[in-house]
Amino acid sequence: MKSKPGLFISFEGGEGSGKSTQIHHLATWFREQGREVVVTREPGGSPGAEEIRNLILTGDPGRWDAVTEALLMFASRRDHVERTIRPALAEGKVVLCDRFADSSVVYQGYGHGLGADYIRNLWKLAIGDFKPDLTVIFDLPLEVGLDRAGARFANVSAAEDRYERMGLAFHERIRDGYREIAATEKDRCVVIDASGDIESVGERVIAAVQGRIAGQGT
Amino acid sequence: MKSKPGLFISFEGGEGSGKSTQIHHLATWFREQGREVVVTREPGGSPGAEEIRNLILTGDPGRWDAVTEALLMFASRRDHVERTIRPALAEGKVVLCDRFADSSVVYQGYGHGLGADYIRNLWKLAIGDFKPDLTVIFDLPLEVGLDRAGARFANVSAAEDRYERMGLAFHERIRDGYREIAATEKDRCVVIDASGDIESVGERVIAAVQGRIAGQGT
Repeated sequence: MKSKPGLFISFEGGEGSGKSTQIHHLATWFREQGREVVVTREPGGSPGAEEIRNLILTGDPGRWDAVTEALLMFASRRDHVERTIRPALAEGKVVLCDRFADSSVVYQGYGHGLGADYIRNLWKLAIGDFKPDLTVIFDLPLEVGLDRAGARFANVSAAEDRYERMGLAFHERIRDGYREIAATEKDRCVVIDASGDIESVGERVIAAVQGRIAGQGT
Repeated sequence: MKSKPGLFISFEGGEGSGKSTQIHHLATWFREQGREVVVTREPGGSPGAEEIRNLILTGDPGRWDAVTEALLMFASRRDHVERTIRPALAEGKVVLCDRFADSSVVYQGYGHGLGADYIRNLWKLAIGDFKPDLTVIFDLPLEVGLDRAGARFANVSAAEDRYERMGLAFHERIRDGYREIAATEKDRCVVIDASGDIESVGERVIAAVQGRIAGQGT
């Protein structure tokens, strides 16, 4: 029996889009198909990258300027790719990652105004042409996303809390950024309507994944 | 009385070249001229950069690959420049820095084989065109430098200890790298023969600095 090649899927979207719930739902689905699955997230995902994550997310939100933060993000991403993602793919596993380099393009590039090209240059220097096989972008009207995120404020992560405080204009730039990426990289990206209940969104995700990986025979 | 402009001098060189001794000697000389002096060093030099320094220098020497290390170096450098160096220069101070971006060009670019152009691209993304007004490169025959470094092994810094273990071929690439930088950027760089006693080297450093800053009237 020929072993299946590795598959790297990243998940992107604004606050409250339900990424982590959907990732775990999809992981279960892949395991039911007999695949080995690694669920990971950024920043972090390897011992070194987790240490860099702590540097990025702890302390005063203004402790790093946007450029320093972008450099730290790509340092942690490099470590994550080299130590976790590539080895798992080499073993034929499915890697499901909550946020990847598109988050830097969107949050630091569009949101903080460094520009998408600036971040793509850094991407190239940090990890070359490496990118997900498929990127699922959860799209949600801003008000719905921020309402959802606010509802779980009590146990929100430090990372997401920081961004929730940024105001509506910032979140509009984020949403526009994701839409531009999806429009430019149609082969890699699929936009999923994240409104509605968890089950309906989950069905849309699986349908999209099945459509994209048909060539792999999964 | 017109206040003097800030002055940024970096000091480079292989192991055992006596950088820190000479920096303190030169700091004293500048203070005798009535200048305010900030002595700093890389990696580190600002609270955030010191935290990144700890990430770089602690733990297993192989915990970061060369690219991740270069990204961390430039993240710490960005913070150092924005939070320590630029503010000091804006106040007309003299900033003396033990190692700066040339160290990344030489150690990661030449030493670890990432290439000088690769590091210069990263330099541009991290701190743009920012560079020292003057870079003093201490040059020393390899055997002398490694002997000197070995003699102070008991209290050597973790950073230098790592590099001392790299072998002669590595240190040859370092020396060649510094010579190439000096040859290419003659206006910014001055090479100082670091052999001989501390006083003689100190006199050479002051003569070189005086020659270069004559236009500033210091």
